[in-house]
Amino acid sequence: MVFGAILAGGVGSRLGADIPKQFLMLGDKPVIVYSLEKFLACPRMDRVFIGVHPDYLEHTKQIVAQYVPEDAHRVHILSGGGSRNDTLQNIIAAIDTLRQDSEEDIIVTHDAARPFVTMRMIEENIDAAQKIGAVNTVCAATDTIVISEDGAVVSDIPNKAVMYYGHSPQSFRINLLKRLYNTLTQEEKDILTDACKICCLRGQQVALVRSEYTNLKITTPGDYIIAQAFIAAGVDQK
Amino acid sequence: MVFGAILAGGVGSRLGADIPKQFLMLGDKPVIVYSLEKFLACPRMDRVFIGVHPDYLEHTKQIVAQYVPEDAHRVHILSGGGSRNDTLQNIIAAIDTLRQDSEEDIIVTHDAARPFVTMRMIEENIDAAQKIGAVNTVCAATDTIVISEDGAVVSDIPNKAVMYYGHSPQSFRINLLKRLYNTLTQEEKDILTDACKICCLRGQQVALVRSEYTNLKITTPGDYIIAQAFIAAGVDQK
Repeated sequence: MVFGAILAGGVGSRLGADIPKQFLMLGDKPVIVYSLEKFLACPRMDRVFIGVHPDYLEHTKQIVAQYVPEDAHRVHILSGGGSRNDTLQNIIAAIDTLRQDSEEDIIVTHDAARPFVTMRMIEENIDAAQKIGAVNTVCAATDTIVISEDGAVVSDIPNKAVMYYGHSPQSFRINLLKRLYNTLTQEEKDILTDACKICCLRGQQVALVRSEYTNLKITTPGDYIIAQAFIAAGVDQK
Repeated sequence: MVFGAILAGGVGSRLGADIPKQFLMLGDKPVIVYSLEKFLACPRMDRVFIGVHPDYLEHTKQIVAQYVPEDAHRVHILSGGGSRNDTLQNIIAAIDTLRQDSEEDIIVTHDAARPFVTMRMIEENIDAAQKIGAVNTVCAATDTIVISEDGAVVSDIPNKAVMYYGHSPQSFRINLLKRLYNTLTQEEKDILTDACKICCLRGQQVALVRSEYTNLKITTPGDYIIAQAFIAAGVDQK
Protein backbone atom coordinates (compact mmCIF):
# COMPACT_ATOMS: atom_id res chain seq x y z
CA MET A 1 0.00 0.00 0.00
CA VAL A 2 1.00 3.63 -0.47
CA PHE A 3 0.31 6.21 2.22
CA GLY A 4 0.56 9.98 2.06
CA ALA A 5 1.76 11.90 5.10
CA ILE A 6 1.18 15.64 5.00
CA LEU A 7 3.18 17.28 7.76
CA ALA A 8 1.23 20.26 9.03
CA GLY A 9 2.30 20.34 12.67
CA GLY A 10 3.87 23.80 12.65
CA VAL A 11 2.16 26.59 14.55
CA GLY A 12 4.71 29.35 14.07
CA SER A 13 4.07 31.97 11.46
CA ARG A 14 6.68 34.38 10.23
CA LEU A 15 4.00 35.76 7.96
CA GLY A 16 2.48 37.95 10.62
CA ALA A 17 -0.83 36.17 10.23
CA ASP A 18 -2.94 34.75 13.06
CA ILE A 19 -2.93 31.22 11.69
CA PRO A 20 -0.09 28.92 10.63
CA LYS A 21 0.98 29.40 7.01
CA GLN A 22 -0.37 26.03 5.86
CA PHE A 23 -3.91 27.24 6.65
CA LEU A 24 -3.64 30.68 5.03
CA MET A 25 -5.86 31.27 2.02
CA LEU A 26 -4.03 31.13 -1.31
CA GLY A 27 -6.29 31.95 -4.22
CA ASP A 28 -9.58 30.18 -3.55
CA LYS A 29 -8.45 27.64 -0.93
CA PRO A 30 -6.10 27.17 2.04
CA VAL A 31 -2.45 26.36 1.28
CA ILE A 32 -2.70 22.80 2.62
CA VAL A 33 -5.55 21.91 0.25
CA TYR A 34 -3.31 22.17 -2.83
CA SER A 35 -1.05 19.27 -1.85
CA LEU A 36 -3.93 17.33 -0.25
CA GLU A 37 -5.84 17.45 -3.56
CA LYS A 38 -2.76 16.31 -5.52
CA PHE A 39 -2.17 13.40 -3.13
CA LEU A 40 -5.80 12.30 -3.27
CA ALA A 41 -5.83 12.54 -7.07
CA CYS A 42 -2.96 10.05 -7.33
CA PRO A 43 -4.60 6.67 -8.09
CA ARG A 44 -1.81 4.76 -6.33
CA MET A 45 -2.29 6.63 -3.03
CA ASP A 46 -4.41 4.49 -0.69
CA ARG A 47 -4.81 6.87 2.25
CA VAL A 48 -3.57 10.34 3.19
CA PHE A 49 -2.65 11.19 6.79
CA ILE A 50 -2.40 14.77 8.00
CA GLY A 51 -0.42 15.48 11.16
CA VAL A 52 -1.45 18.78 12.81
CA HIS A 53 -0.98 20.54 16.14
CA PRO A 54 -3.76 19.52 18.58
CA ASP A 55 -5.16 23.06 18.47
CA TYR A 56 -5.86 22.67 14.75
CA LEU A 57 -7.48 19.21 14.65
CA GLU A 58 -10.99 20.62 14.39
CA HIS A 59 -9.96 23.32 11.90
CA THR A 60 -8.34 20.69 9.65
CA LYS A 61 -11.43 18.47 9.81
CA GLN A 62 -13.54 21.39 8.63
CA ILE A 63 -11.13 22.09 5.77
CA VAL A 64 -11.27 18.45 4.62
CA ALA A 65 -15.08 18.41 4.85
CA GLN A 66 -15.33 21.65 2.91
CA TYR A 67 -12.74 21.21 0.17
CA VAL A 68 -12.44 17.45 -0.48
CA PRO A 69 -15.77 16.05 0.81
CA GLU A 70 -15.90 13.18 -1.70
CA ASP A 71 -12.48 11.92 -0.58
CA ALA A 72 -12.84 12.59 3.16
CA HIS A 73 -13.06 8.85 3.85
CA ARG A 74 -9.47 8.44 2.57
CA VAL A 75 -8.13 11.21 4.83
CA HIS A 76 -6.99 10.64 8.43
CA ILE A 77 -6.28 13.64 10.62
CA LEU A 78 -4.20 13.11 13.73
CA SER A 79 -2.34 15.06 16.35
CA GLY A 80 1.31 15.74 15.58
CA GLY A 81 4.17 15.55 18.02
CA GLY A 82 6.42 18.34 19.16
CA SER A 83 8.76 17.98 16.17
CA ARG A 84 8.67 16.92 12.54
CA ASN A 85 10.09 13.50 13.50
CA ASP A 86 7.49 13.04 16.23
CA THR A 87 4.69 13.92 13.82
CA LEU A 88 6.03 11.42 11.31
CA GLN A 89 6.29 8.75 14.03
CA ASN A 90 2.68 9.39 15.08
CA ILE A 91 1.57 8.99 11.48
CA ILE A 92 3.54 5.77 11.04
CA ALA A 93 2.00 4.38 14.23
CA ALA A 94 -1.46 5.19 12.87
CA ILE A 95 -0.63 3.65 9.50
CA ASP A 96 0.46 0.46 11.27
CA THR A 97 -3.12 -0.12 12.40
CA LEU A 98 -4.16 -0.27 8.72
CA ARG A 99 -1.56 -2.52 7.13
CA GLN A 100 -0.09 -6.03 7.29
CA ASP A 101 3.52 -4.89 7.90
CA SER A 102 4.51 -5.45 4.28
CA GLU A 103 8.04 -4.68 3.10
CA GLU A 104 6.44 -3.10 0.03
CA ASP A 105 4.46 -0.39 1.80
CA ILE A 106 5.53 3.18 1.04
CA ILE A 107 5.05 6.47 2.85
CA VAL A 108 5.20 9.70 0.83
CA THR A 109 5.83 12.57 3.26
CA HIS A 110 5.24 16.19 2.27
CA ASP A 111 5.37 19.68 3.78
CA ALA A 112 1.88 21.15 4.03
CA ALA A 113 3.41 24.55 3.21
CA ARG A 114 4.61 23.39 -0.26
CA PRO A 115 1.42 23.75 -2.31
CA PHE A 116 2.91 23.28 -5.80
CA VAL A 117 3.94 19.64 -5.67
CA THR A 118 3.11 17.96 -8.99
CA MET A 119 1.66 14.58 -9.86
CA ARG A 120 4.93 13.71 -11.64
CA MET A 121 6.87 14.25 -8.40
CA ILE A 122 4.44 12.09 -6.42
CA GLU A 123 4.53 9.26 -9.00
CA GLU A 124 8.33 9.35 -9.26
CA ASN A 125 8.58 9.34 -5.46
CA ILE A 126 6.51 6.16 -5.27
CA ASP A 127 8.51 4.49 -8.07
CA ALA A 128 11.89 5.37 -6.56
CA ALA A 129 10.86 4.46 -3.01
CA GLN A 130 9.73 1.03 -4.21
CA LYS A 131 13.02 0.56 -6.04
CA ILE A 132 15.61 2.16 -3.72
CA GLY A 133 13.83 2.47 -0.37
CA ALA A 134 14.31 6.20 0.26
CA VAL A 135 13.77 9.31 -1.88
CA ASN A 136 14.40 13.04 -1.69
CA THR A 137 12.88 15.56 -4.12
CA VAL A 138 15.53 18.14 -5.03
CA CYS A 139 16.23 21.02 -7.36
CA ALA A 140 19.69 21.90 -8.74
CA ALA A 141 21.10 24.88 -6.82
CA THR A 142 20.73 28.12 -8.76
CA ASP A 143 22.77 30.27 -6.37
CA THR A 144 26.37 29.50 -5.48
CA ILE A 145 26.38 27.83 -2.06
CA VAL A 146 28.54 29.53 0.56
CA ILE A 147 29.54 27.90 3.84
CA SER A 148 30.23 30.05 6.88
CA GLU A 149 30.92 28.43 10.23
CA ASP A 150 30.65 31.71 12.17
CA GLY A 151 28.20 33.72 10.06
CA ALA A 152 30.80 36.48 9.64
CA VAL A 153 33.31 35.24 7.05
CA VAL A 154 33.25 32.61 4.30
CA SER A 155 34.60 29.18 5.31
CA ASP A 156 34.25 27.51 1.92
CA ILE A 157 32.52 27.79 -1.44
CA PRO A 158 31.90 24.20 -2.57
CA ASN A 159 31.46 23.09 -6.18
CA LYS A 160 28.01 24.31 -7.20
CA ALA A 161 27.54 21.52 -9.76
CA VAL A 162 26.90 18.94 -7.03
CA MET A 163 24.66 21.11 -4.83
CA TYR A 164 20.87 20.77 -4.68
CA TYR A 165 18.04 22.35 -2.72
CA GLY A 166 16.16 19.73 -0.69
CA HIS A 167 12.41 19.97 -1.13
CA SER A 168 9.65 17.49 -0.40
CA PRO A 169 8.10 14.93 -0.94
CA GLN A 170 10.50 12.60 0.84
CA SER A 171 9.42 8.98 0.55
CA PHE A 172 10.42 5.76 2.24
CA ARG A 173 9.68 2.09 2.57
CA ILE A 174 7.88 2.21 5.92
CA ASN A 175 9.66 -0.76 7.45
CA LEU A 176 13.05 0.60 6.43
CA LEU A 177 12.30 3.95 8.06
CA LYS A 178 11.08 2.27 11.25
CA ARG A 179 14.22 0.14 11.46
CA LEU A 180 16.46 3.19 11.01
CA TYR A 181 14.54 5.23 13.62
CA ASN A 182 14.99 2.43 16.11
CA THR A 183 18.76 2.74 15.81
CA LEU A 184 18.75 6.41 16.83
CA THR A 185 19.72 7.64 20.28
CA GLN A 186 17.54 10.35 21.85
CA GLU A 187 20.29 12.87 21.10
CA GLU A 188 20.32 11.84 17.43
CA LYS A 189 16.52 12.07 17.30
CA ASP A 190 16.73 15.66 18.53
CA ILE A 191 19.37 16.59 15.94
CA LEU A 192 18.24 14.58 12.90
CA THR A 193 15.08 16.41 11.95
CA ASP A 194 15.41 15.30 8.32
CA ALA A 195 14.47 11.68 7.64
CA CYS A 196 16.67 11.58 4.50
CA LYS A 197 19.63 12.65 6.61
CA ILE A 198 18.94 9.74 8.95
CA CYS A 199 19.10 7.43 5.92
CA CYS A 200 22.40 8.99 4.78
CA LEU A 201 24.03 8.62 8.18
CA ARG A 202 22.97 4.98 8.40
CA GLY A 203 24.30 4.18 4.92
CA GLN A 204 20.87 3.80 3.30
CA GLN A 205 20.92 5.02 -0.31
CA VAL A 206 18.56 7.94 -1.01
CA ALA A 207 17.42 8.40 -4.61
CA LEU A 208 16.84 11.85 -6.10
CA VAL A 209 13.63 12.91 -7.78
CA ARG A 210 13.64 16.17 -9.71
CA SER A 211 11.70 19.03 -8.14
CA GLU A 212 10.69 22.31 -9.80
CA TYR A 213 11.62 25.85 -8.82
CA THR A 214 7.89 26.36 -8.19
CA ASN A 215 7.83 23.77 -5.39
CA LEU A 216 8.61 26.41 -2.79
CA LYS A 217 7.89 26.22 0.93
CA ILE A 218 5.87 29.18 2.13
CA THR A 219 7.73 30.52 5.15
CA THR A 220 8.27 34.26 4.81
CA PRO A 221 6.01 37.10 3.59
CA GLY A 222 8.12 37.11 0.40
CA ASP A 223 7.32 33.44 -0.19
CA TYR A 224 3.63 34.24 0.15
CA ILE A 225 3.96 36.99 -2.49
CA ILE A 226 5.73 34.50 -4.77
CA ALA A 227 3.06 31.83 -4.20
CA GLN A 228 0.32 34.31 -5.08
CA ALA A 229 2.21 35.22 -8.28
CA PHE A 230 2.47 31.52 -9.13
CA ILE A 231 -1.29 31.14 -8.66
CA ALA A 232 -1.89 34.14 -10.94
CA ALA A 233 0.42 32.52 -13.53
CA GLY A 234 -1.45 29.20 -13.32
CA VAL A 235 1.41 27.20 -11.79
CA ASP A 236 -1.07 25.14 -9.70
CA GLN A 237 -2.76 23.89 -12.88
CA LYS A 238 0.30 21.86 -13.91
CA MET B 1 37.76 55.75 -4.91
CA VAL B 2 34.81 53.38 -5.16
CA PHE B 3 33.83 51.84 -8.51
CA GLY B 4 30.72 49.91 -9.43
CA ALA B 5 30.99 47.03 -11.91
CA ILE B 6 27.71 45.80 -13.31
CA LEU B 7 28.30 42.47 -15.05
CA ALA B 8 25.93 42.26 -18.01
CA GLY B 9 27.97 40.17 -20.42
CA GLY B 10 25.54 37.26 -20.70
CA VAL B 11 23.73 36.73 -23.97
CA GLY B 12 21.92 33.50 -23.18
CA SER B 13 18.29 33.64 -22.27
CA ARG B 14 16.40 30.76 -20.75
CA LEU B 15 13.41 33.05 -20.68
CA GLY B 16 12.48 32.40 -24.28
CA ALA B 17 12.84 36.09 -25.07
CA ASP B 18 14.84 37.56 -27.95
CA ILE B 19 17.08 39.67 -25.72
CA PRO B 20 19.24 38.74 -22.72
CA LYS B 21 17.36 38.81 -19.43
CA GLN B 22 19.17 41.90 -18.10
CA PHE B 23 17.60 43.96 -20.88
CA LEU B 24 14.03 42.65 -20.54
CA MET B 25 11.43 45.15 -19.41
CA LEU B 26 10.39 44.79 -15.77
CA GLY B 27 7.64 47.20 -14.81
CA ASP B 28 8.51 50.52 -16.43
CA LYS B 29 12.22 49.94 -17.19
CA PRO B 30 14.75 47.28 -18.24
CA VAL B 31 16.04 44.90 -15.54
CA ILE B 32 19.58 46.37 -15.62
CA VAL B 33 18.33 49.90 -14.86
CA TYR B 34 17.21 48.92 -11.33
CA SER B 35 20.71 48.13 -10.08
CA LEU B 36 22.30 50.90 -12.18
CA GLU B 37 20.03 53.47 -10.51
CA LYS B 38 20.84 52.11 -7.04
CA PHE B 39 24.59 52.22 -7.72
CA LEU B 40 24.40 55.77 -9.08
CA ALA B 41 22.30 56.90 -6.11
CA CYS B 42 25.03 55.83 -3.68
CA PRO B 43 26.97 59.00 -2.81
CA ARG B 44 30.19 57.04 -2.23
CA MET B 45 30.18 55.49 -5.71
CA ASP B 46 32.51 57.48 -7.98
CA ARG B 47 31.90 55.74 -11.29
CA VAL B 48 29.86 52.78 -12.54
CA PHE B 49 31.21 50.46 -15.25
CA ILE B 50 28.93 48.17 -17.24
CA GLY B 51 30.47 45.19 -19.02
CA VAL B 52 28.31 43.95 -21.92
CA HIS B 53 28.63 41.65 -24.92
CA PRO B 54 29.93 43.63 -27.95
CA ASP B 55 26.57 43.14 -29.68
CA TYR B 56 24.84 45.10 -26.92
CA LEU B 57 27.19 48.10 -26.53
CA GLU B 58 24.93 50.39 -28.53
CA HIS B 59 21.76 49.08 -26.88
CA THR B 60 23.25 49.72 -23.43
CA LYS B 61 24.31 53.26 -24.40
CA GLN B 62 20.74 53.99 -25.43
CA ILE B 63 19.40 52.61 -22.14
CA VAL B 64 21.77 54.81 -20.12
CA ALA B 65 20.86 57.87 -22.19
CA GLN B 66 17.15 57.19 -21.81
CA TYR B 67 16.87 56.14 -18.15
CA VAL B 68 19.73 57.90 -16.29
CA PRO B 69 20.60 60.87 -18.54
CA GLU B 70 21.66 63.15 -15.68
CA ASP B 71 24.21 60.56 -14.47
CA ALA B 72 25.42 59.33 -17.87
CA HIS B 73 28.79 61.06 -17.34
CA ARG B 74 29.48 58.72 -14.38
CA VAL B 75 28.69 55.58 -16.41
CA HIS B 76 31.26 53.75 -18.57
CA ILE B 77 30.10 51.04 -20.93
CA LEU B 78 32.64 48.58 -22.21
CA SER B 79 32.87 45.29 -24.01
CA GLY B 80 32.91 42.21 -21.79
CA GLY B 81 35.07 39.17 -22.27
CA GLY B 82 33.96 35.62 -22.93
CA SER B 83 33.44 34.82 -19.24
CA ARG B 84 32.48 36.57 -16.03
CA ASN B 85 36.15 36.72 -15.01
CA ASP B 86 37.18 38.19 -18.36
CA THR B 87 34.47 40.85 -18.12
CA LEU B 88 35.65 41.74 -14.62
CA GLN B 89 39.27 41.90 -15.82
CA ASN B 90 38.28 44.22 -18.68
CA ILE B 91 36.51 46.50 -16.21
CA ILE B 92 39.48 46.53 -13.85
CA ALA B 93 41.79 47.41 -16.74
CA ALA B 94 39.49 50.32 -17.64
CA ILE B 95 39.31 51.45 -14.01
CA ASP B 96 43.11 51.49 -13.88
CA THR B 97 43.15 54.33 -16.40
CA LEU B 98 41.18 56.46 -13.91
CA ARG B 99 42.95 55.88 -10.61
CA GLN B 100 46.28 56.28 -8.87
CA ASP B 101 46.67 52.60 -7.92
CA SER B 102 45.60 53.24 -4.34
CA GLU B 103 45.35 50.37 -1.87
CA GLU B 104 42.09 51.94 -0.69
CA ASP B 105 40.20 51.69 -3.98
CA ILE B 106 37.19 49.38 -3.98
CA ILE B 107 35.24 47.63 -6.73
CA VAL B 108 31.62 46.65 -6.05
CA THR B 109 30.65 43.98 -8.59
CA HIS B 110 27.02 43.09 -9.25
CA ASP B 111 24.95 40.84 -11.52
CA ALA B 112 22.89 42.94 -13.94
CA ALA B 113 20.12 40.33 -13.61
CA ARG B 114 19.66 41.03 -9.84
CA PRO B 115 17.47 44.13 -9.89
CA PHE B 116 16.54 44.26 -6.20
CA VAL B 117 19.90 45.09 -4.61
CA THR B 118 19.37 47.63 -1.83
CA MET B 119 21.31 50.70 -0.76
CA ARG B 120 22.05 49.00 2.57
CA MET B 121 23.75 46.12 0.77
CA ILE B 122 25.86 48.49 -1.35
CA GLU B 123 26.91 50.57 1.67
CA GLU B 124 27.76 47.51 3.75
CA ASN B 125 29.73 46.09 0.83
CA ILE B 126 31.87 49.21 0.65
CA ASP B 127 32.39 49.27 4.43
CA ALA B 128 33.36 45.61 4.64
CA ALA B 129 35.60 45.72 1.54
CA GLN B 130 37.51 48.66 3.05
CA LYS B 131 37.89 46.78 6.33
CA ILE B 132 38.44 43.13 5.23
CA GLY B 133 39.36 43.37 1.54
CA ALA B 134 36.74 41.01 0.09
CA VAL B 135 32.96 40.68 0.56
CA ASN B 136 30.18 38.34 -0.48
CA THR B 137 26.47 39.19 -0.09
CA VAL B 138 24.64 36.10 1.15
CA CYS B 139 21.30 34.90 2.46
CA ALA B 140 20.85 32.08 5.02
CA ALA B 141 19.76 28.91 3.22
CA THR B 142 16.02 28.30 3.55
CA ASP B 143 16.02 24.83 1.98
CA THR B 144 18.09 21.95 3.29
CA ILE B 145 21.18 21.64 1.08
CA VAL B 146 21.69 18.22 -0.48
CA ILE B 147 24.95 17.12 -2.10
CA SER B 148 24.90 14.54 -4.90
CA GLU B 149 28.11 13.68 -6.73
CA ASP B 150 26.30 11.74 -9.48
CA GLY B 151 22.91 13.47 -9.65
CA ALA B 152 21.16 10.16 -8.91
CA VAL B 153 21.58 9.52 -5.17
CA VAL B 154 22.34 11.69 -2.13
CA SER B 155 26.04 11.87 -1.17
CA ASP B 156 25.61 14.04 1.92
CA ILE B 157 23.21 16.41 3.66
CA PRO B 158 25.41 18.98 5.42
CA ASN B 159 24.42 21.04 8.45
CA LYS B 160 21.94 23.62 7.15
CA ALA B 161 22.82 26.14 9.88
CA VAL B 162 26.12 27.02 8.19
CA MET B 163 24.82 27.13 4.61
CA TYR B 164 24.12 30.34 2.70
CA TYR B 165 23.03 31.28 -0.80
CA GLY B 166 25.67 33.41 -2.53
CA HIS B 167 24.19 36.53 -4.14
CA SER B 168 25.84 39.72 -5.30
CA PRO B 169 27.25 42.38 -4.82
CA GLN B 170 30.71 40.93 -4.32
CA SER B 171 33.23 43.61 -3.47
CA PHE B 172 37.01 43.77 -3.31
CA ARG B 173 39.98 46.00 -2.78
CA ILE B 174 41.04 46.32 -6.42
CA ASN B 175 44.76 45.77 -5.81
CA LEU B 176 44.06 42.68 -3.72
CA LEU B 177 41.91 41.17 -6.47
CA LYS B 178 44.55 41.93 -9.12
CA ARG B 179 47.27 40.29 -7.03
CA LEU B 180 45.15 37.17 -6.51
CA TYR B 181 44.24 36.94 -10.23
CA ASN B 182 47.92 37.07 -11.12
CA THR B 183 48.56 33.94 -9.06
CA LEU B 184 46.02 31.87 -11.07
CA THR B 185 46.99 29.37 -13.73
CA GLN B 186 44.96 29.38 -16.96
CA GLU B 187 43.25 26.19 -15.78
CA GLU B 188 42.30 27.84 -12.48
CA LYS B 189 40.99 30.89 -14.35
CA ASP B 190 38.72 28.62 -16.39
CA ILE B 191 37.38 26.87 -13.29
CA LEU B 192 37.21 29.73 -10.78
CA THR B 193 34.36 31.76 -12.18
CA ASP B 194 33.55 33.19 -8.75
CA ALA B 195 35.95 35.89 -7.51
CA CYS B 196 35.07 35.15 -3.86
CA LYS B 197 36.06 31.53 -4.41
CA ILE B 198 39.44 32.70 -5.71
CA CYS B 199 39.87 34.66 -2.45
CA CYS B 200 38.92 31.60 -0.38
CA LEU B 201 41.35 29.33 -2.18
CA ARG B 202 44.17 31.83 -1.72
CA GLY B 203 43.46 32.25 1.99
CA GLN B 204 42.03 35.77 1.71
CA GLN B 205 39.26 36.33 4.25
CA VAL B 206 35.85 37.12 2.68
CA ALA B 207 33.37 39.01 4.87
CA LEU B 208 29.64 38.33 4.67
CA VAL B 209 27.04 41.01 4.08
CA ARG B 210 23.40 40.08 4.61
CA SER B 211 21.30 39.80 1.45
CA GLU B 212 17.51 39.63 1.22
CA TYR B 213 15.33 36.86 -0.24
CA THR B 214 14.18 39.47 -2.75
CA ASN B 215 17.69 39.86 -4.22
CA LEU B 216 17.04 37.13 -6.77
CA LYS B 217 18.85 36.61 -10.06
CA ILE B 218 16.45 36.48 -12.97
CA THR B 219 17.38 33.35 -14.92
CA THR B 220 14.27 31.25 -15.56
CA PRO B 221 10.71 32.16 -16.61
CA GLY B 222 9.71 31.45 -12.99
CA ASP B 223 12.20 34.04 -11.74
CA TYR B 224 10.69 36.57 -14.11
CA ILE B 225 7.21 35.86 -12.70
CA ILE B 226 8.60 36.32 -9.20
CA ALA B 227 10.35 39.57 -10.14
CA GLN B 228 7.12 40.94 -11.58
CA ALA B 229 5.30 39.99 -8.37
CA PHE B 230 7.98 41.79 -6.36
CA ILE B 231 7.50 44.91 -8.49
CA ALA B 232 3.73 44.72 -7.91
CA ALA B 233 4.42 44.41 -4.16
CA GLY B 234 6.73 47.45 -4.20
CA VAL B 235 9.93 45.55 -3.37
CA ASP B 236 11.97 47.88 -5.61
CA GLN B 237 10.96 50.88 -3.50
CA LYS B 238 12.94 49.63 -0.49
